[in-house]
Amino acid sequence: MRLIFLGDVVGRTGRQIVTTHLPRLIERYAIDFAVVNGENAAGGFGITEEILQSFLDAGADVVTTGNHVWDQRDALVFIARQPRLIRPINYPPGTPGAGATMVTARNGARVFVANVMGRTFMEPLDDPVRPLEHALEMHKLGSEVDAAIVDVHAEATSEKQVFGHLLDGRVSLVAGTHTHCPTADHRVLPYGTAFITDLGMCGTYDSVIGMEKDEPMRRMVERVPGQRIGPATGPATLSGVAVDTDDRTGLANWIAPVRVGGDLDPALPTRWEED
Amino acid sequence: MRLIFLGDVVGRTGRQIVTTHLPRLIERYAIDFAVVNGENAAGGFGITEEILQSFLDAGADVVTTGNHVWDQRDALVFIARQPRLIRPINYPPGTPGAGATMVTARNGARVFVANVMGRTFMEPLDDPVRPLEHALEMHKLGSEVDAAIVDVHAEATSEKQVFGHLLDGRVSLVAGTHTHCPTADHRVLPYGTAFITDLGMCGTYDSVIGMEKDEPMRRMVERVPGQRIGPATGPATLSGVAVDTDDRTGLANWIAPVRVGGDLDPALPTRWEED
Amino acid sequence: MRLIFLGDVVGRTGRQIVTTHLPRLIERYAIDFAVVNGENAAGGFGITEEILQSFLDAGADVVTTGNHVWDQRDALVFIARQPRLIRPINYPPGTPGAGATMVTARNGARVFVANVMGRTFMEPLDDPVRPLEHALEMHKLGSEVDAAIVDVHAEATSEKQVFGHLLDGRVSLVAGTHTHCPTADHRVLPYGTAFITDLGMCGTYDSVIGMEKDEPMRRMVERVPGQRIGPATGPATLSGVAVDTDDRTGLANWIAPVRVGGDLDPALPTRWEED
Amino acid sequence: MRLIFLGDVVGRTGRQIVTTHLPRLIERYAIDFAVVNGENAAGGFGITEEILQSFLDAGADVVTTGNHVWDQRDALVFIARQPRLIRPINYPPGTPGAGATMVTARNGARVFVANVMGRTFMEPLDDPVRPLEHALEMHKLGSEVDAAIVDVHAEATSEKQVFGHLLDGRVSLVAGTHTHCPTADHRVLPYGTAFITDLGMCGTYDSVIGMEKDEPMRRMVERVPGQRIGPATGPATLSGVAVDTDDRTGLANWIAPVRVGGDLDPALPTRWEED
Ligand SMILES: [Fe+2]
Ligand SMILES: [Fe+2]
Ligand SMILES: [Fe+2]
Ligand SMILES: [Fe+2]
Ligand SMILES: [Fe+2]
Ligand SMILES: [Fe+2]
Ligand SMILES: [Fe+2]
Ligand SMILES: [Fe+2]
Repeated sequence: MRLIFLGDVVGRTGRQIVTTHLPRLIERYAIDFAVVNGENAAGGFGITEEILQSFLDAGADVVTTGNHVWDQRDALVFIARQPRLIRPINYPPGTPGAGATMVTARNGARVFVANVMGRTFMEPLDDPVRPLEHALEMHKLGSEVDAAIVDVHAEATSEKQVFGHLLDGRVSLVAGTHTHCPTADHRVLPYGTAFITDLGMCGTYDSVIGMEKDEPMRRMVERVPGQRIGPATGPATLSGVAVDTDDRTGLANWIAPVRVGGDLDPALPTRWEED
Repeated sequence: MRLIFLGDVVGRTGRQIVTTHLPRLIERYAIDFAVVNGENAAGGFGITEEILQSFLDAGADVVTTGNHVWDQRDALVFIARQPRLIRPINYPPGTPGAGATMVTARNGARVFVANVMGRTFMEPLDDPVRPLEHALEMHKLGSEVDAAIVDVHAEATSEKQVFGHLLDGRVSLVAGTHTHCPTADHRVLPYGTAFITDLGMCGTYDSVIGMEKDEPMRRMVERVPGQRIGPATGPATLSGVAVDTDDRTGLANWIAPVRVGGDLDPALPTRWEED
Repeated sequence: MRLIFLGDVVGRTGRQIVTTHLPRLIERYAIDFAVVNGENAAGGFGITEEILQSFLDAGADVVTTGNHVWDQRDALVFIARQPRLIRPINYPPGTPGAGATMVTARNGARVFVANVMGRTFMEPLDDPVRPLEHALEMHKLGSEVDAAIVDVHAEATSEKQVFGHLLDGRVSLVAGTHTHCPTADHRVLPYGTAFITDLGMCGTYDSVIGMEKDEPMRRMVERVPGQRIGPATGPATLSGVAVDTDDRTGLANWIAPVRVGGDLDPALPTRWEED
Repeated sequence: MRLIFLGDVVGRTGRQIVTTHLPRLIERYAIDFAVVNGENAAGGFGITEEILQSFLDAGADVVTTGNHVWDQRDALVFIARQPRLIRPINYPPGTPGAGATMVTARNGARVFVANVMGRTFMEPLDDPVRPLEHALEMHKLGSEVDAAIVDVHAEATSEKQVFGHLLDGRVSLVAGTHTHCPTADHRVLPYGTAFITDLGMCGTYDSVIGMEKDEPMRRMVERVPGQRIGPATGPATLSGVAVDTDDRTGLANWIAPVRVGGDLDPALPTRWEED
C-alpha cells in the first residue's frame, strides 16, 4: 500500500503548493492514502473549515493538527462534523473532536490515523501514551487495519524518537510534526515501522519556520515586541514522506522523503516508478 | 575552499565513526577545514582532553560545544590551553575558554569559527547576538578571513533560522547543532551563507538522540526515575555538511549533506569529485 | 475541628524544628489532625522510611510529597506499605503509592487528604483535576468526611489559586507547597474553603529555598557548574497554617499562619486559646 | 529614612487602592520615598503615561516594571521622557528607558532604584547581575546614595533569594515582584539589607493573580482557549513593605508588611508610630 504524509501547511503559499501538487503526486504514484498536518494552514494559526475542505478535495484522507488546532475558534465547532479532521488524542475527556480515526482508503483498505502531542517544552496536556495504546488495541495492524499512521506533534527530538520506538512493529508510520523543519533521519525501525523525526512544513522556507523573517530577526536583537508576524511569501516547498507498506502485515517496506518546489533539495518517491 | 562540519559526537560509537571516517573524507575530497561538535563525546556528557586530541588528530581544526561543555569538569581547566576547543560565546565574561577563534587552515586560509548558544527552551545565558557581532566585525569575510563558520547550538528551529538570516552574507556557514537529528533544509541563503537547521549527530541512530532507548521508553510510560542512561551501541552514522566556498568572497557555492555508515541514507559531497 | 499543615521540610534543620515543635503545637492547641509535606526531608531530596516514621511519631497523620517524591529511590518500594505517605495523584496509573487517602483522626473524625501536582513550569504529568474530582466524589465533605485537605504542589501562583477556586466549598483547606516560601495570602475563600498559595518550608531561611546559599550565588554570577548543594544549617523556622473547621460542614471558620523559630516573624494560632 | 514599596498594581481596582491609600500612608507615617511596580496597571497589561502620572501624583517617586512593561506599546516611546519610570536593566543595549535611576526624595535624600528581571521560567534576557553591579558601583550606599532599592522581577523564589544574598549589605531593600502573591518571609538579611521574596500585588485577591477567575478555572479543566481575561473586580488590597533605614549607613533597621483593604490580613508599619 502507498502512503503519503505532508507536514504542517503554513499559510497561503503552503496551501497552494499542497493543493497543486498533492493531486499530481497521488495520481503519478498511485498513492492510496494521504495525510496532511493542517494546524498552521490559516495564516499560520489554525485551520478553517473551508481550508480543510480544500485539502480533502486535493486528496487528503485525514488532516491532523497540533497545538495550533484551536487558533481559529470555529474549529471547536466544525471539528464535530468533520470526522477526517483530528486533534491530539491527549486533550482531556470532553474536548471536541477525536484524536484518532479509521478511514477507508481509495483502495478499500482500512487505515487508522492518530494524532498525539508531546509535552516537553509544550503546554501541559495529558499522557499521550495510554489513550494511544487504547486506540491501537482496537485497531491491530495486519488484522483490524491495513495501515496505521501516528502524527507525533512535539518539539523535542527525544520525545518523538521515543514514540517511534514505543510503536515500532505496531504501526506503519510514526511521523513527527511541529518544528516545521524536515529531518533527514527517515528510516524503517527494527520491527518494521517507518519513522521520521519531523516531516518539515509545506510553505516558504526563506522564512522563520514559514513566517516572515524580518520581525523575528528584529526581536532576536531588540527583545521588545513589534509588528504582528504573518506567513512568508515566496516560493514554497511541499515536504513530507512516502511510505510503501506490506499489504499483509501493514509494516513498512521503505520510507522516502518527498519535497517539491521552493528552496530545498527536491525528492520524489521514484522507487514506486521502478516497481 | 572546502569545509566540513560534523554534528554532536555521542559516545564511543560516535567517536569511532568520526575518527575512522573524518580522515578518509578529508583525504578523498581534499577538504581544507574541518569542524566537529564534541559536547557529547565523553559518554554522552562533555568532552575530555584526550578525546579532544583524538578529534584534532583525526583532522578536526576546531571543536565546538554547547550546553554539555562543562559536564566533564576538567574542561573548565584544559579549555584554557586548548585554543581549538571553543564554547558558546554568550557565557558571561570571565568564563574559561573562548567563544570564537581564528585558525589557519591546511591550505593557509584564515578561518573564523564561533559558537553561540540559543536561549529558547534552554538555560539562561547572555545575548548571543552582540558578542558574535563584535567578533565578526574584527573578522570580516572576504578581507580579514577567508571563511567563517558559526555553530548555533539551540533547541528551537526558529531560533536557529533567525541566526541564519541575521548572518546571511557575512559568514560562509551557519550550522545548527544540539537536537542530534539532521535536518534536510540545507541550502544557500539569499545573500550567500550556507545554512542547515541541524547537522544531526555522529552516533548510533537506533537510539533516543544517541542514548540507549530502553530507559527513555520506560520513563515516557511510567514517569518515575530509574536507571542511568548511557550512549547507545550499534552501527553509527557520521552526520554533517560539506560546504564549497568562493575563494574570493568566502561565501558558499553550495552545501551538501554528509552521512556515512549506520541507518541513515548515505550522502557524500560528490560534487567535489566532478570538479 | 483543628487542623495544622506544615510546608516542605528541608534537611536536618527542617526535620528537627518539626519533630521538636509539632508535638508541642498539637498538645498546646489540642490539634486534631496534622499534615506535613516531606518531599525534601532527606538532605533536600526525597524522604526515607525512617524520616517518614519520625514525622508520624511527631504527630503527623499524613505526609504529602511532590516532584521530589522519588529522589530517594526506596520510596518507590516503601510507599506501598506506608498508607500515610501519599504522592501526587496525577502520576500515571500503575505508579506506586496513592495520591489521596482517608485517615481517622485522633478525635475519631474522618479526614480526606489529597496531593496534586501542578504542570506549569514543572515536569509533564497527567491532568490533576479529574482524578482529584473522582476522589472527592467519593469523599463528600460534611457527609462522608469531616475534613478534606488538598496539597497543591506547584510552581505558579496562578495554578495554585485556580485550584483554590475550583475546590472552594468542597474541601476544608487547599494549601500550596513547592516554592519553599510562605505566602501571606491565607484566607477563607467565598464558599468556605481555607486557602494559602504556599505554606513555605520548614527549614533554614538564611539560605536559598533551604539549601546552602554560596553555590547558588556563585552559579548566578558564573553560570558554570560547581559543588553539590546541600541543605543550609543555622536556625530553622517551622512554617505552615492552622485551620479551624466547622464540625458539621467541614468548611473553614478561619485560617492562620504558624511560624516558629528562626528568622521569620513568629505566628501562632492564638485564636484557639481564646475559645 | 522611611521607604515604602508596593507590588504589581493590577487593573482598575489596584490603581484605586493605590491612589487612595498611598497618599494617606505617606502622610500618616511621614514616608520619605515610595516605589510602585506598575507593570500590570493598564487592564492587567502594561502601563499608560496617564496611569504613570496618577501614581506619581499619589506620591510614588519611582515606578518599576517587569515582563509586561511593553504591553502598552506607547511605553516604548514615553519611557524616554519619564525618568521616574524604569524597566528591567537587563534588556539589551539600545532598549528605550533605563533600568536604574537616582532620584532625590522629599527629604533631600539621594535614592537609587534599580529593576532587574529574572530568567528562570521567563523570557530570555541578558545577565541581570553585571549591569546591576555596574550601576551599584557608581551609587555606593552610605556615601553616594542614602538609600538603594532593587526590584527583582522574577518567577522563581530561588532566583529572588539569590539576589537578596548577592546584594546583602550593599542596598537598603531587595524586593521581589511578579508572582502577585505576597510572601511572609520579609526580614533583614545578615549584612543589613531588607528582603522579601515577593511584595504581592495591589489588586483584587478574589481572583487568579488579580485577573477574573472564571476563565482560568475553565481553562484548567478544559485546556482549550476561550474568552479574553480581564482584571478582577471586587474589594482590592494594597500590598507591599515598609522599610526603616539607618540614615548614616542606608541599611535597614527593620522591614514590615503593609496591607490595606480587601481580603488579606491587614498590616501597617505601626513601629513608625512608636518612635
Ligand atoms: Fe506547526
Ligand atoms: Fe505545532
Ligand atoms: Fe548535543
Ligand atoms: Fe546540546
Ligand atoms: Fe519542596
Ligand atoms: Fe517541590
Ligand atoms: Fe505583574
Ligand atoms: Fe511580571
